[in-house]
Amino acid sequence: EDHEAKESGDTWLPSLITETPQEGFALAVTLSQKGVGTTQPDAEVRKAQRPEYAEDPDSLIAASHVIATHFQTVAAANDYWRE
Amino acid sequence: EDHEAKESGDTWLPSLITETPQEGFALAVTLSQKGVGTTQPDAEVRKAQRPEYAEDPDSLIAASHVIATHFQTVAAANDYWRE
Amino acid sequence: EDHEAKESGDTWLPSLITETPQEGFALAVTLSQKGVGTTQPDAEVRKAQRPEYAEDPDSLIAASHVIATHFQTVAAANDYWRE
Amino acid sequence: EDHEAKESGDTWLPSLITETPQEGFALAVTLSQKGVGTTQPDAEVRKAQRPEYAEDPDSLIAASHVIATHFQTVAAANDYWRE
Amino acid sequence: EDHEAKESGDTWLPSLITETPQEGFALAVTLSQKGVGTTQPDAEVRKAQRPEYAEDPDSLIAASHVIATHFQTVAAANDYWRE
Amino acid sequence: EDHEAKESGDTWLPSLITETPQEGFALAVTLSQKGVGTTQPDAEVRKAQRPEYAEDPDSLIAASHVIATHFQTVAAANDYWRE
Repeated sequence: EDHEAKESGDTWLPSLITETPQEGFALAVTLSQKGVGTTQPDAEVRKAQRPEYAEDPDSLIAASHVIATHFQTVAAANDYWRE
Repeated sequence: EDHEAKESGDTWLPSLITETPQEGFALAVTLSQKGVGTTQPDAEVRKAQRPEYAEDPDSLIAASHVIATHFQTVAAANDYWRE
Repeated sequence: EDHEAKESGDTWLPSLITETPQEGFALAVTLSQKGVGTTQPDAEVRKAQRPEYAEDPDSLIAASHVIATHFQTVAAANDYWRE
Repeated sequence: EDHEAKESGDTWLPSLITETPQEGFALAVTLSQKGVGTTQPDAEVRKAQRPEYAEDPDSLIAASHVIATHFQTVAAANDYWRE
Repeated sequence: EDHEAKESGDTWLPSLITETPQEGFALAVTLSQKGVGTTQPDAEVRKAQRPEYAEDPDSLIAASHVIATHFQTVAAANDYWRE
Repeated sequence: EDHEAKESGDTWLPSLITETPQEGFALAVTLSQKGVGTTQPDAEVRKAQRPEYAEDPDSLIAASHVIATHFQTVAAANDYWRE
């Protein structure tokens, strides 16, 4: 699936609207990863980096910050799933 | 409970609405931790990291920043608990 | 008072509404500290860290950034104290 | 095309409006790169830096954060592509 | 004046409203410095740190980021000085 | 012109309104630089620092983040140049 996502014609972000806040959070995670993938498109390199940052608390906090920023966007798009 | 939360079918974020600002802050903390947990799903590894970052002031400030970002979202969702 | 605040039943954040911008700024400071306190609940450890980060300009700037983020929230909650 | 973009008369940002969220994300990436390019206008230097930061997970996370910040702007401009 | 500002009864932030964007930017600078001053209230220590961070480009960029965050708040409070 | 800008009476930010998104981005760059210039007013020192941070990818990403934050403000001020 990663291979497909890299072909430019693919749609990976059809909408910011989700059914639930939890799906919205999952979308924020996807957006964060996509931001990384844009700068480092080689999935093998990214996989090789994972042990490094997944064991570094500061990297994990920084990754959580990016997710939080995207979650602001997704939550606003969904009017905070108020109803 | 951590075990349950990892099973994909579980609902851990049913709503962004809380009764009080203080509960909203607690939700922001949960969201921050979830962001970390998504990148490092192994609860044992996360537990092992805790002494490291909990004693590093810069890590604590960074964690507080993530909470602040999520609290913006939760507060907006609740219209700032104005009434 | 720190002891009291740690007991879960305590209310430390009844509202985001303040009389003045300056009180709002003080609340933003409280929220920032609370974010740190949530991750490192031991007040003794936090006190021991203070000399370290209070003498590190980069830590102070980072702490100021967290305050700024919370102040955005508090200011919006108060409609910027426009009247 | 990089050469053209550097000539001051060129228009590289005619609008923040995009057809789809995915194009909006691509625009956020462009804006992030432009921010880097403004501070370091020499494309050769930037190209030489790429291996360095593309292999550093913390740099990738930081780059993803900038994209997230611009995506907030682009998404708001497009009213979150709600319809 | 720094001495006065530290006495708790003093008003240093009567309003977020300014006449012009430029005064708003100056207020954002003040708010950023106040955030630092809250964590390190000793003006002598802060003065001693100045040569250190004022010569470190990364510290200057971080300080500029805090100013940017406060400027968002001040600009919104003033409805962006649109008229 | 840098000399003039430092004289307190000078107006360097008459408005946040720009004709186009691209001019808005340029204004965001100016605001970011002004934030640096406020903390380090000596233009000679800033010029001496340039080679250092312009060759450091992490500094460039951090600078791009500040620009992104100011661009949010400028874009909102201009209602995203929607018409």
